[in-house]
Amino acid sequence: MSGARRTLLLIGIGAGDPDYLTLQAIKALNRADVFFIQDKGQDKQALRHLRTEICERFIEGGHYRLVPFDYPTRAKEFSDYKANVASWHGEIEAIYARLLRDELQDGQCGAFLIWGDPSLYDSTLRIIEALHRKSEIAFDYEIIPGITAVQALAAQHRIALNAIGEPVHITTGRKLSAQQPLGGESVVVMLDGEQAFTRIDPEVEIFWGAYLGTKEQLLIAGKLGEVADKIASTREAARHSNGWIMDSYLLRRPR
Amino acid sequence: MSGARRTLLLIGIGAGDPDYLTLQAIKALNRADVFFIQDKGQDKQALRHLRTEICERFIEGGHYRLVPFDYPTRAKEFSDYKANVASWHGEIEAIYARLLRDELQDGQCGAFLIWGDPSLYDSTLRIIEALHRKSEIAFDYEIIPGITAVQALAAQHRIALNAIGEPVHITTGRKLSAQQPLGGESVVVMLDGEQAFTRIDPEVEIFWGAYLGTKEQLLIAGKLGEVADKIASTREAARHSNGWIMDSYLLRRPR
Repeated sequence: MSGARRTLLLIGIGAGDPDYLTLQAIKALNRADVFFIQDKGQDKQALRHLRTEICERFIEGGHYRLVPFDYPTRAKEFSDYKANVASWHGEIEAIYARLLRDELQDGQCGAFLIWGDPSLYDSTLRIIEALHRKSEIAFDYEIIPGITAVQALAAQHRIALNAIGEPVHITTGRKLSAQQPLGGESVVVMLDGEQAFTRIDPEVEIFWGAYLGTKEQLLIAGKLGEVADKIASTREAARHSNGWIMDSYLLRRPR
Repeated sequence: MSGARRTLLLIGIGAGDPDYLTLQAIKALNRADVFFIQDKGQDKQALRHLRTEICERFIEGGHYRLVPFDYPTRAKEFSDYKANVASWHGEIEAIYARLLRDELQDGQCGAFLIWGDPSLYDSTLRIIEALHRKSEIAFDYEIIPGITAVQALAAQHRIALNAIGEPVHITTGRKLSAQQPLGGESVVVMLDGEQAFTRIDPEVEIFWGAYLGTKEQLLIAGKLGEVADKIASTREAARHSNGWIMDSYLLRRPR
């Protein structure tokens, strides 16, 4: 394989439950020589464990190497959100360039295990794409989709994401606060650290979930006027006792 | 198991490639005694084949029964879209009630194999929910999420669904024509039989895909002004030669 290019696989591992892995993801796991395992620097040990557990459970033969790396944290103080993210992504890109150059040989295959789906609110794909465009190190890359928290949320609440013929709007807590875009559409909110749902019309229905697909899973549904406080306090207690939280929710006006 | 309730499983089988099946879906396939296989009455033989192929490939032991049923077609002429859909769903509900009553015994488990994810633009979940609410026949039901065409589209084009911190709007061709909702967000369009993309600003970028995850897969990307005609003609030729088409696309203003 001398002279063959390096390959990076961005493998979606689904939201929480290892049984969310697809057959395509399992085949991809078995192609990789090296797994780049990020240390978020936060309290998300549980996520790191899940990644190594997935390798142990699904890779046959065990001929692979785990390469942990320190994941930089985004500056908490900033004036311009996009510039702040761009600078943070630059730091991560430098780390990925080093991993690609120093930890993979020609013809070898490295993998990132990505929570949910690599295409939805995850920066890895965008950073790998930027690295690929610069072409300082030649490599190929592939995306393996995974079950997102959005889908786990809908499945666990047994709800359709869309009302009949109506759109689904997936957004962040930050944007929800700014826009309140609630017509006939369903609004799915991810990455909401500020509990933006507490500032929405109390007549709106919420379907909330945290730690979806895991033993710690929490689900609450109802009109915001009736359940918003309960969600806020449940969320805070769980975040405190587990040391981290990942949650998402769907908002919709009742028919 | 006398007296035990019937169970219905709504299993997302992903978009096209059988390797999109999750381990959870495979476990669910192996729990089912009966599979209800719909005949869409259209030329979607290929989809029907995929469903039976999935049963043959992933069910161990082979102790299951396939129950085909005629899927009613929605009236083509109507004045009120929602009333038209409601009446069509009523017909389907009567069929599901019959299947549940006549084709399952107490304690048995029936399954529907659903293209993509049962929670996104598929009516089965909503109809089963209505049947469950009426509780003429007691049953439990579970949703197994699957990889959607939206995710397959993003993976095959190797693009993120969202721009940094920006929302993703999933909608239909019908709604796109009415709204043209194109700000900083990404717009994913499904169920577009009218090629609504041909009426969008030519400066907008499109990432189009058809028969995603299958051998017939088609991908075209570029500015609408440059590729809209090519997509329209490719789409028409493919629909003619295959007898059916399932396609979707993402629209986004270039950065």
